[in-house]
Amino acid sequence: MSKIAYLNGRFVKLKDAKINIEDRGFQFSDSIYEVIAFKNCKFIDLKFHLIRLRNSLKFINIKYKFTNKNMENKFFRLISMNKINSGLIYIQITRGVQPRSHAYTINLKPTIVIYIIKKNFNDKINKLISKTAITYPDLRWKRRDIKSVSLLPNILAATEASNKSSYEAILIENGYVTEGTASNIWMVKNRILKTHPANSDILRGITRDSIKKLIKKYKLKLIEKKIKKESLYISDEVFLTSSSSFVTPIVKIDNKLINKGKIGNITMELARLYNLRTI
Amino acid sequence: MSKIAYLNGRFVKLKDAKINIEDRGFQFSDSIYEVIAFKNCKFIDLKFHLIRLRNSLKFINIKYKFTNKNMENKFFRLISMNKINSGLIYIQITRGVQPRSHAYTINLKPTIVIYIIKKNFNDKINKLISKTAITYPDLRWKRRDIKSVSLLPNILAATEASNKSSYEAILIENGYVTEGTASNIWMVKNRILKTHPANSDILRGITRDSIKKLIKKYKLKLIEKKIKKESLYISDEVFLTSSSSFVTPIVKIDNKLINKGKIGNITMELARLYNLRTI
Repeated sequence: MSKIAYLNGRFVKLKDAKINIEDRGFQFSDSIYEVIAFKNCKFIDLKFHLIRLRNSLKFINIKYKFTNKNMENKFFRLISMNKINSGLIYIQITRGVQPRSHAYTINLKPTIVIYIIKKNFNDKINKLISKTAITYPDLRWKRRDIKSVSLLPNILAATEASNKSSYEAILIENGYVTEGTASNIWMVKNRILKTHPANSDILRGITRDSIKKLIKKYKLKLIEKKIKKESLYISDEVFLTSSSSFVTPIVKIDNKLINKGKIGNITMELARLYNLRTI
Repeated sequence: MSKIAYLNGRFVKLKDAKINIEDRGFQFSDSIYEVIAFKNCKFIDLKFHLIRLRNSLKFINIKYKFTNKNMENKFFRLISMNKINSGLIYIQITRGVQPRSHAYTINLKPTIVIYIIKKNFNDKINKLISKTAITYPDLRWKRRDIKSVSLLPNILAATEASNKSSYEAILIENGYVTEGTASNIWMVKNRILKTHPANSDILRGITRDSIKKLIKKYKLKLIEKKIKKESLYISDEVFLTSSSSFVTPIVKIDNKLINKGKIGNITMELARLYNLRTI
Protein backbone atom coordinates (compact mmCIF):
# COMPACT_ATOMS: atom_id res chain seq x y z
CA MET A 1 0.00 0.00 0.00
CA SER A 2 1.29 3.47 -0.85
CA LYS A 3 1.93 5.76 2.07
CA ILE A 4 -0.23 8.88 2.02
CA ALA A 5 0.95 12.35 2.98
CA TYR A 6 -0.82 15.68 3.32
CA LEU A 7 0.62 18.51 1.26
CA ASN A 8 -0.93 21.97 0.96
CA GLY A 9 -4.54 20.93 1.23
CA ARG A 10 -4.31 17.61 -0.59
CA PHE A 11 -3.76 14.00 0.40
CA VAL A 12 -1.23 12.48 -2.00
CA LYS A 13 1.07 9.50 -2.21
CA LEU A 14 4.20 10.14 -0.13
CA LYS A 15 6.41 9.54 -3.14
CA ASP A 16 4.43 12.16 -5.09
CA ALA A 17 4.54 14.70 -2.24
CA LYS A 18 7.01 17.16 -3.64
CA ILE A 19 7.91 20.74 -3.00
CA ASN A 20 9.28 23.37 -5.31
CA ILE A 21 13.05 23.91 -5.36
CA GLU A 22 12.42 27.58 -4.60
CA ASP A 23 10.59 26.69 -1.43
CA ARG A 24 12.33 28.62 1.34
CA GLY A 25 12.30 25.53 3.54
CA PHE A 26 14.59 23.88 1.00
CA GLN A 27 16.86 26.82 0.16
CA PHE A 28 17.14 28.55 3.54
CA SER A 29 15.84 26.09 6.20
CA ASP A 30 13.18 28.77 6.63
CA SER A 31 10.83 26.30 8.22
CA ILE A 32 9.71 24.80 11.52
CA TYR A 33 8.35 21.38 12.49
CA GLU A 34 6.82 19.18 15.15
CA VAL A 35 6.86 15.46 15.84
CA ILE A 36 3.85 14.11 17.73
CA ALA A 37 3.57 10.55 18.99
CA PHE A 38 0.31 8.59 18.88
CA LYS A 39 -0.52 5.22 20.37
CA ASN A 40 -3.69 3.33 19.53
CA CYS A 41 -4.93 6.40 17.67
CA LYS A 42 -4.45 8.58 20.75
CA PHE A 43 -2.12 11.56 20.50
CA ILE A 44 0.33 12.19 23.30
CA ASP A 45 0.34 15.79 24.54
CA LEU A 46 -1.21 17.03 21.29
CA LYS A 47 -2.31 20.31 22.84
CA PHE A 48 1.20 21.20 23.93
CA HIS A 49 2.70 20.29 20.56
CA LEU A 50 0.24 22.59 18.82
CA ILE A 51 1.05 25.40 21.27
CA ARG A 52 4.75 24.97 20.50
CA LEU A 53 4.03 24.80 16.76
CA ARG A 54 2.25 28.16 17.01
CA ASN A 55 5.16 29.58 19.02
CA SER A 56 7.69 28.41 16.44
CA LEU A 57 5.66 30.02 13.65
CA LYS A 58 5.47 33.22 15.66
CA PHE A 59 9.20 33.25 16.48
CA ILE A 60 10.15 33.34 12.81
CA ASN A 61 7.08 35.24 11.69
CA ILE A 62 5.45 32.67 9.42
CA LYS A 63 1.77 33.49 9.08
CA TYR A 64 -0.05 30.18 9.08
CA LYS A 65 -3.38 29.99 10.83
CA PHE A 66 -5.08 26.78 11.88
CA THR A 67 -7.51 25.51 14.49
CA ASN A 68 -6.56 22.59 16.72
CA LYS A 69 -9.69 20.74 15.63
CA ASN A 70 -8.86 21.10 11.96
CA MET A 71 -5.27 20.00 12.48
CA GLU A 72 -6.37 17.02 14.53
CA ASN A 73 -8.79 16.02 11.79
CA LYS A 74 -5.95 16.00 9.26
CA PHE A 75 -3.92 13.79 11.58
CA PHE A 76 -6.84 11.37 12.03
CA ARG A 77 -7.42 11.18 8.29
CA LEU A 78 -3.75 10.31 7.76
CA ILE A 79 -3.91 7.68 10.49
CA SER A 80 -6.97 6.20 8.88
CA MET A 81 -5.68 6.35 5.29
CA ASN A 82 -2.33 4.86 6.25
CA LYS A 83 -3.84 2.23 8.56
CA ILE A 84 -1.23 2.85 11.26
CA ASN A 85 -2.40 2.91 14.87
CA SER A 86 0.83 3.91 16.59
CA GLY A 87 3.66 6.05 15.35
CA LEU A 88 4.70 9.63 14.81
CA ILE A 89 2.98 12.53 13.10
CA TYR A 90 5.59 14.69 11.33
CA ILE A 91 4.43 18.19 10.48
CA GLN A 92 6.60 20.78 8.75
CA ILE A 93 5.61 24.30 7.77
CA THR A 94 7.80 26.50 5.58
CA ARG A 95 7.49 30.17 4.73
CA GLY A 96 6.59 29.23 1.17
CA VAL A 97 7.94 29.65 -2.34
CA GLN A 98 9.73 32.86 -3.35
CA PRO A 99 12.32 33.70 -6.01
CA ARG A 100 15.60 33.20 -4.13
CA SER A 101 16.44 36.12 -1.86
CA HIS A 102 17.67 36.04 1.72
CA ALA A 103 15.09 38.57 2.87
CA TYR A 104 11.57 37.17 2.76
CA THR A 105 8.57 39.01 1.48
CA ILE A 106 5.42 39.07 3.55
CA ASN A 107 2.22 37.35 2.48
CA LEU A 108 3.87 34.26 1.05
CA LYS A 109 1.67 31.19 1.13
CA PRO A 110 3.22 28.76 3.63
CA THR A 111 3.93 25.18 2.55
CA ILE A 112 2.52 22.55 4.90
CA VAL A 113 3.56 18.91 4.93
CA ILE A 114 2.18 16.24 7.26
CA TYR A 115 2.84 12.54 7.18
CA ILE A 116 3.16 9.51 9.40
CA ILE A 117 6.33 7.73 10.43
CA LYS A 118 6.16 4.20 11.82
CA LYS A 119 7.74 3.85 15.23
CA ASN A 120 8.10 1.19 17.89
CA PHE A 121 8.07 2.97 21.22
CA ASN A 122 10.30 2.17 24.17
CA ASP A 123 7.29 1.73 26.43
CA LYS A 124 7.35 -1.86 27.68
CA ILE A 125 7.79 -1.26 31.34
CA ASN A 126 9.01 -4.78 32.08
CA LYS A 127 11.28 -4.63 29.07
CA LEU A 128 12.44 -1.02 29.11
CA ILE A 129 15.32 -0.78 26.67
CA SER A 130 18.50 1.00 27.76
CA LYS A 131 20.75 2.76 25.27
CA THR A 132 24.24 4.20 24.99
CA ALA A 133 25.35 7.72 24.07
CA ILE A 134 28.41 9.66 23.07
CA THR A 135 29.26 13.29 23.78
CA TYR A 136 29.80 15.67 20.87
CA PRO A 137 30.47 19.43 20.56
CA ASP A 138 27.34 21.57 20.39
CA LEU A 139 27.84 23.52 17.15
CA ARG A 140 24.28 24.81 16.84
CA TRP A 141 22.98 28.32 16.41
CA LYS A 142 21.95 30.44 19.37
CA ARG A 143 18.17 29.99 19.16
CA ARG A 144 17.69 26.32 19.96
CA ASP A 145 14.35 27.18 21.58
CA ILE A 146 12.94 27.50 18.04
CA LYS A 147 12.09 24.08 16.59
CA SER A 148 13.46 24.86 13.14
CA VAL A 149 14.84 22.55 10.45
CA SER A 150 18.28 24.20 10.71
CA LEU A 151 19.43 20.77 11.87
CA LEU A 152 22.75 20.25 10.11
CA PRO A 153 24.80 20.31 13.35
CA ASN A 154 22.31 17.89 14.94
CA ILE A 155 22.53 15.40 12.12
CA LEU A 156 26.33 15.49 12.02
CA ALA A 157 26.38 14.69 15.76
CA ALA A 158 23.64 12.04 15.45
CA THR A 159 25.50 10.35 12.62
CA GLU A 160 28.69 10.24 14.67
CA ALA A 161 26.69 8.57 17.45
CA SER A 162 25.21 6.10 14.99
CA ASN A 163 28.65 5.30 13.57
CA LYS A 164 29.75 4.48 17.11
CA SER A 165 26.68 2.27 17.58
CA SER A 166 25.22 4.75 20.04
CA TYR A 167 21.62 5.90 20.25
CA GLU A 168 22.18 9.59 20.87
CA ALA A 169 24.85 12.30 20.92
CA ILE A 170 24.82 14.44 24.05
CA LEU A 171 25.84 17.94 23.02
CA ILE A 172 28.51 19.73 25.05
CA GLU A 173 29.09 23.48 25.09
CA ASN A 174 31.91 25.00 27.14
CA GLY A 175 32.16 21.82 29.18
CA TYR A 176 28.46 21.58 29.95
CA VAL A 177 25.62 19.46 28.60
CA THR A 178 22.98 21.37 26.67
CA GLU A 179 20.77 18.53 25.36
CA GLY A 180 20.77 15.61 22.92
CA THR A 181 20.46 16.02 19.14
CA ALA A 182 16.75 15.22 19.45
CA SER A 183 16.14 14.81 23.18
CA ASN A 184 16.55 16.42 26.60
CA ILE A 185 19.14 14.94 28.96
CA TRP A 186 18.60 14.22 32.67
CA MET A 187 20.85 12.86 35.39
CA VAL A 188 20.25 11.62 38.91
CA LYS A 189 22.79 11.91 41.74
CA ASN A 190 21.91 11.04 45.34
CA ARG A 191 18.24 10.87 44.36
CA ILE A 192 18.27 14.45 43.02
CA LEU A 193 17.35 14.96 39.37
CA LYS A 194 19.12 17.54 37.25
CA THR A 195 18.46 18.91 33.76
CA HIS A 196 19.31 22.02 31.73
CA PRO A 197 16.99 24.98 32.37
CA ALA A 198 14.59 25.87 29.55
CA ASN A 199 16.20 28.90 27.93
CA SER A 200 17.35 29.66 24.37
CA ASP A 201 20.23 27.15 24.71
CA ILE A 202 17.88 24.15 24.45
CA LEU A 203 14.57 23.17 22.95
CA ARG A 204 11.96 22.94 25.68
CA GLY A 205 10.77 19.39 25.16
CA ILE A 206 7.09 18.57 25.52
CA THR A 207 8.10 15.29 27.18
CA ARG A 208 10.50 17.28 29.38
CA ASP A 209 7.52 19.32 30.61
CA SER A 210 5.48 16.17 31.23
CA ILE A 211 8.32 14.62 33.22
CA LYS A 212 8.62 17.81 35.27
CA LYS A 213 4.94 17.50 36.18
CA LEU A 214 5.45 13.88 37.27
CA ILE A 215 8.50 14.88 39.31
CA LYS A 216 6.42 17.49 41.07
CA LYS A 217 3.43 15.23 41.57
CA TYR A 218 5.53 12.47 43.09
CA LYS A 219 7.59 14.90 45.16
CA LEU A 220 10.94 14.03 43.66
CA LYS A 221 13.66 16.65 43.81
CA LEU A 222 14.72 18.45 40.62
CA ILE A 223 17.38 21.08 40.01
CA GLU A 224 17.24 22.89 36.66
CA LYS A 225 20.89 23.71 36.16
CA LYS A 226 23.56 22.99 33.57
CA ILE A 227 25.24 19.59 33.98
CA LYS A 228 29.01 19.39 33.79
CA LYS A 229 30.14 16.77 31.30
CA GLU A 230 32.25 15.05 33.96
CA SER A 231 29.29 14.93 36.38
CA LEU A 232 27.40 12.85 33.85
CA TYR A 233 30.05 10.15 33.90
CA ILE A 234 29.86 9.77 37.69
CA SER A 235 26.10 10.18 38.02
CA ASP A 236 23.88 7.46 39.46
CA GLU A 237 21.47 7.49 36.52
CA VAL A 238 21.14 9.19 33.13
CA PHE A 239 18.13 9.18 30.86
CA LEU A 240 16.84 11.11 27.90
CA THR A 241 13.34 12.19 27.02
CA SER A 242 11.66 13.07 23.76
CA SER A 243 8.30 12.72 22.05
CA SER A 244 9.50 9.69 20.14
CA SER A 245 11.93 8.17 22.67
CA PHE A 246 9.67 8.65 25.72
CA VAL A 247 11.91 7.99 28.76
CA THR A 248 14.97 6.13 27.55
CA PRO A 249 17.68 5.10 30.05
CA ILE A 250 21.30 5.81 29.06
CA VAL A 251 23.65 3.32 30.67
CA LYS A 252 26.90 4.08 28.87
CA ILE A 253 28.37 7.42 27.76
CA ASP A 254 31.64 7.59 25.82
CA ASN A 255 32.41 4.04 26.92
CA LYS A 256 31.90 4.90 30.59
CA LEU A 257 29.27 2.79 32.31
CA ILE A 258 26.57 4.57 34.30
CA ASN A 259 25.21 2.68 37.30
CA LYS A 260 27.31 -0.33 36.22
CA GLY A 261 25.31 -0.45 33.01
CA LYS A 262 21.97 -0.99 34.72
CA ILE A 263 18.78 1.06 34.52
CA GLY A 264 18.39 3.12 37.71
CA ASN A 265 15.34 3.10 39.97
CA ILE A 266 14.25 6.68 39.43
CA THR A 267 14.55 6.33 35.65
CA MET A 268 12.51 3.15 35.80
CA GLU A 269 9.84 4.78 37.94
CA LEU A 270 9.57 7.89 35.75
CA ALA A 271 9.37 5.72 32.63
CA ARG A 272 6.59 3.70 34.25
CA LEU A 273 4.65 6.82 35.24
CA TYR A 274 5.14 8.41 31.82
CA ASN A 275 4.11 5.29 29.97
CA LEU A 276 0.95 4.98 32.08
CA ARG A 277 -0.08 8.37 30.68
CA THR A 278 0.22 7.10 27.13
CA ILE A 279 -1.99 4.04 27.42
CA MET B 1 9.03 31.56 -21.82
CA SER B 2 9.27 29.04 -18.99
CA LYS B 3 12.42 29.07 -16.95
CA ILE B 4 14.37 25.83 -17.17
CA ALA B 5 16.16 24.18 -14.26
CA TYR B 6 18.40 21.14 -13.98
CA LEU B 7 17.28 18.51 -11.50
CA ASN B 8 18.95 15.12 -11.02
CA GLY B 9 20.03 14.61 -14.62
CA ARG B 10 17.09 16.27 -16.34
CA PHE B 11 16.28 19.71 -17.65
CA VAL B 12 12.76 20.61 -16.54
CA LYS B 13 10.58 23.67 -16.19
CA LEU B 14 11.49 25.51 -12.98
CA LYS B 15 7.91 25.28 -11.75
CA ASP B 16 8.01 21.51 -12.26
CA ALA B 17 11.41 21.12 -10.55
CA LYS B 18 10.33 19.52 -7.30
CA ILE B 19 11.99 17.52 -4.61
CA ASN B 20 10.60 14.88 -2.31
CA ILE B 21 9.44 15.95 1.15
CA GLU B 22 11.78 13.33 2.62
CA ASP B 23 14.75 14.93 0.92
CA ARG B 24 17.25 15.61 3.70
CA GLY B 25 17.90 19.06 2.29
CA PHE B 26 14.28 19.90 3.11
CA GLN B 27 13.95 18.15 6.49
CA PHE B 28 17.41 18.74 7.98
CA SER B 29 19.14 21.45 5.87
CA ASP B 30 21.51 18.59 5.08
CA SER B 31 22.68 20.35 1.95
CA ILE B 32 25.28 22.74 0.56
CA TYR B 33 25.21 25.27 -2.27
CA GLU B 34 27.14 27.72 -4.45
CA VAL B 35 26.21 30.90 -6.27
CA ILE B 36 28.33 31.71 -9.33
CA ALA B 37 28.08 34.94 -11.28
CA PHE B 38 28.35 35.04 -15.07
CA LYS B 39 28.56 38.04 -17.38
CA ASN B 40 28.18 37.75 -21.14
CA CYS B 41 28.27 33.97 -20.77
CA LYS B 42 31.60 34.13 -18.92
CA PHE B 43 31.75 32.68 -15.41
CA ILE B 44 33.52 34.64 -12.72
CA ASP B 45 36.00 32.58 -10.71
CA LEU B 46 34.29 29.35 -11.72
CA LYS B 47 37.30 27.25 -10.79
CA PHE B 48 37.35 28.55 -7.23
CA HIS B 49 33.61 28.06 -6.76
CA LEU B 50 33.90 24.45 -7.84
CA ILE B 51 36.82 23.91 -5.44
CA ARG B 52 34.70 25.31 -2.62
CA LEU B 53 31.72 23.21 -3.70
CA ARG B 54 33.89 20.09 -3.42
CA ASN B 55 35.14 21.23 -0.02
CA SER B 56 31.59 21.79 1.25
CA LEU B 57 30.59 18.31 0.08
CA LYS B 58 33.65 16.85 1.80
CA PHE B 59 33.04 18.75 5.05
CA ILE B 60 29.62 17.17 5.54
CA ASN B 61 30.52 13.91 3.81
CA ILE B 62 28.14 14.03 0.84
CA LYS B 63 29.49 11.76 -1.87
CA TYR B 64 28.81 13.53 -5.14
CA LYS B 65 31.39 13.25 -7.89
CA PHE B 66 31.60 15.56 -10.89
CA THR B 67 34.14 16.89 -13.34
CA ASN B 68 34.53 20.63 -13.82
CA LYS B 69 33.96 20.20 -17.54
CA ASN B 70 30.72 18.34 -17.05
CA MET B 71 29.45 20.88 -14.53
CA GLU B 72 30.39 23.76 -16.80
CA ASN B 73 28.49 22.11 -19.66
CA LYS B 74 25.34 21.95 -17.53
CA PHE B 75 25.72 25.65 -16.72
CA PHE B 76 26.16 26.53 -20.41
CA ARG B 77 23.12 24.50 -21.38
CA LEU B 78 21.04 26.33 -18.79
CA ILE B 79 22.36 29.68 -20.00
CA SER B 80 21.46 28.73 -23.55
CA MET B 81 18.05 27.26 -22.76
CA ASN B 82 17.09 30.23 -20.59
CA LYS B 83 18.51 32.83 -23.01
CA ILE B 84 20.13 34.79 -20.18
CA ASN B 85 23.63 36.14 -20.76
CA SER B 86 24.34 37.59 -17.33
CA GLY B 87 23.16 36.47 -13.94
CA LEU B 88 23.77 33.90 -11.24
CA ILE B 89 24.08 30.14 -11.36
CA TYR B 90 22.53 28.63 -8.23
CA ILE B 91 23.61 25.09 -7.47
CA GLN B 92 22.43 23.10 -4.46
CA ILE B 93 23.34 19.52 -3.57
CA THR B 94 21.60 17.60 -0.79
CA ARG B 95 22.46 14.27 0.76
CA GLY B 96 19.39 12.76 -0.87
CA VAL B 97 16.10 11.15 0.13
CA GLN B 98 15.90 8.93 3.20
CA PRO B 99 13.08 7.94 5.57
CA ARG B 100 13.33 10.61 8.28
CA SER B 101 16.12 9.92 10.76
CA HIS B 102 18.68 12.35 12.15
CA ALA B 103 21.58 10.00 11.40
CA TYR B 104 22.15 9.61 7.68
CA THR B 105 22.86 6.35 5.96
CA ILE B 106 25.74 6.12 3.54
CA ASN B 107 25.28 5.59 -0.18
CA LEU B 108 22.26 7.83 -0.54
CA LYS B 109 21.86 9.30 -4.00
CA PRO B 110 22.46 13.06 -3.71
CA THR B 111 19.88 15.47 -5.09
CA ILE B 112 21.31 18.12 -7.41
CA VAL B 113 19.52 21.28 -8.41
CA ILE B 114 20.89 23.97 -10.74
CA TYR B 115 19.12 26.99 -12.12
CA ILE B 116 19.68 30.56 -13.18
CA ILE B 117 18.73 33.70 -11.33
CA LYS B 118 18.56 37.01 -13.16
CA LYS B 119 20.76 39.68 -11.65
CA ASN B 120 21.82 43.23 -12.44
CA PHE B 121 25.35 43.61 -11.19
CA ASN B 122 26.74 46.63 -9.41
CA ASP B 123 29.54 46.92 -11.94
CA LYS B 124 29.15 50.32 -13.62
CA ILE B 125 32.33 51.97 -12.56
CA ASN B 126 31.12 55.47 -13.28
CA LYS B 127 27.82 54.69 -11.61
CA LEU B 128 28.90 52.45 -8.74
CA ILE B 129 25.91 52.15 -6.43
CA SER B 130 26.42 52.65 -2.70
CA LYS B 131 24.23 50.94 -0.13
CA THR B 132 23.34 51.10 3.53
CA ALA B 133 23.58 48.42 6.21
CA ILE B 134 22.42 47.65 9.72
CA THR B 135 24.19 45.63 12.41
CA TYR B 136 22.50 42.55 13.82
CA PRO B 137 23.49 39.81 16.30
CA ASP B 138 25.29 36.86 14.75
CA LEU B 139 23.16 33.90 15.85
CA ARG B 140 24.67 31.34 13.47
CA TRP B 141 26.17 27.94 14.16
CA LYS B 142 29.88 27.48 14.70
CA ARG B 143 30.86 26.20 11.23
CA ARG B 144 30.23 29.21 9.02
CA ASP B 145 33.12 28.05 6.81
CA ILE B 146 30.74 25.41 5.39
CA LYS B 147 28.45 26.89 2.74
CA SER B 148 25.37 25.05 3.94
CA VAL B 149 21.68 25.93 3.62
CA SER B 150 21.35 26.21 7.42
CA LEU B 151 20.54 29.85 6.73
CA LEU B 152 17.67 30.66 9.08
CA PRO B 153 19.73 33.12 11.19
CA ASN B 154 20.99 34.77 7.99
CA ILE B 155 17.52 35.25 6.58
CA LEU B 156 16.15 36.67 9.84
CA ALA B 157 18.97 39.24 9.84
CA ALA B 158 18.61 39.98 6.12
CA THR B 159 14.88 40.52 6.51
CA GLU B 160 15.45 42.95 9.38
CA ALA B 161 17.85 44.86 7.10
CA SER B 162 15.29 44.84 4.30
CA ASN B 163 12.56 46.08 6.66
CA LYS B 164 14.84 48.98 7.53
CA SER B 165 15.44 49.67 3.82
CA SER B 166 19.03 48.49 4.13
CA TYR B 167 20.92 46.31 1.71
CA GLU B 168 22.73 44.07 4.18
CA ALA B 169 22.92 43.13 7.85
CA ILE B 170 26.44 43.14 9.28
CA LEU B 171 26.61 40.36 11.85
CA ILE B 172 28.10 41.14 15.26
CA GLU B 173 29.43 38.57 17.72
CA ASN B 174 30.77 39.61 21.12
CA GLY B 175 31.13 43.19 19.88
CA TYR B 176 33.02 42.28 16.70
CA VAL B 177 32.00 42.05 13.05
CA THR B 178 32.05 38.54 11.61
CA GLU B 179 30.60 39.12 8.12
CA GLY B 180 27.37 40.05 6.33
CA THR B 181 24.44 37.65 5.89
CA ALA B 182 25.68 36.94 2.36
CA SER B 183 28.89 38.94 2.03
CA ASN B 184 32.28 39.66 3.57
CA ILE B 185 32.78 43.05 5.24
CA TRP B 186 35.81 45.30 4.80
CA MET B 187 36.80 48.64 6.29
CA VAL B 188 39.49 51.20 5.50
CA LYS B 189 41.10 53.45 8.09
CA ASN B 190 44.13 55.63 7.29
CA ARG B 191 44.52 53.80 3.99
CA ILE B 192 44.81 50.41 5.74
CA LEU B 193 42.23 47.75 4.85
CA LYS B 194 40.86 45.40 7.45
CA THR B 195 38.67 42.29 7.25
CA HIS B 196 37.90 39.23 9.38
CA PRO B 197 40.45 36.40 9.03
CA ALA B 198 39.24 33.31 7.16
CA ASN B 199 38.52 30.81 9.93
CA SER B 200 35.41 28.85 10.93
CA ASP B 201 33.69 32.07 12.09
CA ILE B 202 33.09 33.25 8.52
CA LEU B 203 32.60 31.89 5.03
CA ARG B 204 35.73 32.44 3.00
CA GLY B 205 34.30 34.37 0.07
CA ILE B 206 35.56 33.70 -3.42
CA THR B 207 35.30 37.44 -4.09
CA ARG B 208 37.14 38.05 -0.80
CA ASP B 209 40.02 35.96 -2.14
CA SER B 210 40.01 37.86 -5.43
CA ILE B 211 40.08 41.19 -3.62
CA LYS B 212 43.00 39.97 -1.50
CA LYS B 213 44.92 39.19 -4.69
CA LEU B 214 44.21 42.70 -6.01
CA ILE B 215 45.26 44.24 -2.71
CA LYS B 216 48.54 42.34 -2.90
CA LYS B 217 49.11 43.13 -6.58
CA TYR B 218 48.55 46.83 -6.07
CA LYS B 219 50.57 46.92 -2.84
CA LEU B 220 47.75 48.14 -0.62
CA LYS B 221 47.97 47.31 3.05
CA LEU B 222 45.61 44.72 4.57
CA ILE B 223 45.22 43.47 8.12
CA GLU B 224 43.14 40.31 8.60
CA LYS B 225 41.77 40.88 12.05
CA LYS B 226 38.36 41.14 13.67
CA ILE B 227 36.75 44.59 13.36
CA LYS B 228 35.16 46.15 16.43
CA LYS B 229 31.62 47.28 15.77
CA GLU B 230 32.44 50.81 16.93
CA SER B 231 35.48 50.97 14.62
CA LEU B 232 33.17 50.46 11.66
CA TYR B 233 31.21 53.59 12.49
CA ILE B 234 34.33 55.77 12.54
CA SER B 235 36.09 54.13 9.62
CA ASP B 236 37.02 56.05 6.47
CA GLU B 237 35.39 53.52 4.14
CA VAL B 238 33.31 50.35 4.40
CA PHE B 239 32.45 47.97 1.59
CA LEU B 240 31.17 44.45 1.20
CA THR B 241 32.10 41.79 -1.31
CA SER B 242 30.27 38.74 -2.62
CA SER B 243 29.86 36.79 -5.81
CA SER B 244 26.61 38.56 -6.57
CA SER B 245 27.28 41.99 -5.06
CA PHE B 246 30.86 42.29 -6.40
CA VAL B 247 32.38 45.29 -4.54
CA THR B 248 29.54 47.29 -3.03
CA PRO B 249 30.27 50.45 -1.01
CA ILE B 250 28.46 50.84 2.31
CA VAL B 251 27.99 54.49 3.19
CA LYS B 252 25.64 54.26 6.14
CA ILE B 253 25.50 51.76 9.01
CA ASP B 254 22.78 51.94 11.67
CA ASN B 255 22.03 55.51 10.58
CA LYS B 256 25.66 56.56 10.99
CA LEU B 257 27.19 57.98 7.83
CA ILE B 258 30.53 56.58 6.69
CA ASN B 259 32.82 59.04 4.87
CA LYS B 260 29.97 61.57 4.95
CA GLY B 261 27.91 59.19 2.87
CA LYS B 262 30.32 59.16 -0.06
CA ILE B 263 32.08 56.26 -1.71
CA GLY B 264 35.74 56.20 -0.64
CA ASN B 265 38.72 56.18 -2.98
CA ILE B 266 40.09 52.77 -2.09
CA THR B 267 36.63 51.18 -2.42
CA MET B 268 36.22 52.84 -5.79
CA GLU B 269 39.60 51.66 -6.98
CA LEU B 270 39.08 48.07 -5.82
CA ALA B 271 35.65 48.02 -7.44
CA ARG B 272 37.20 49.26 -10.69
CA LEU B 273 39.94 46.64 -10.61
CA TYR B 274 37.53 43.86 -9.71
CA ASN B 275 35.08 44.84 -12.42
CA LEU B 276 37.84 44.91 -15.02
CA ARG B 277 38.39 41.20 -14.30
CA THR B 278 34.75 40.43 -15.07
CA ILE B 279 34.55 42.00 -18.52
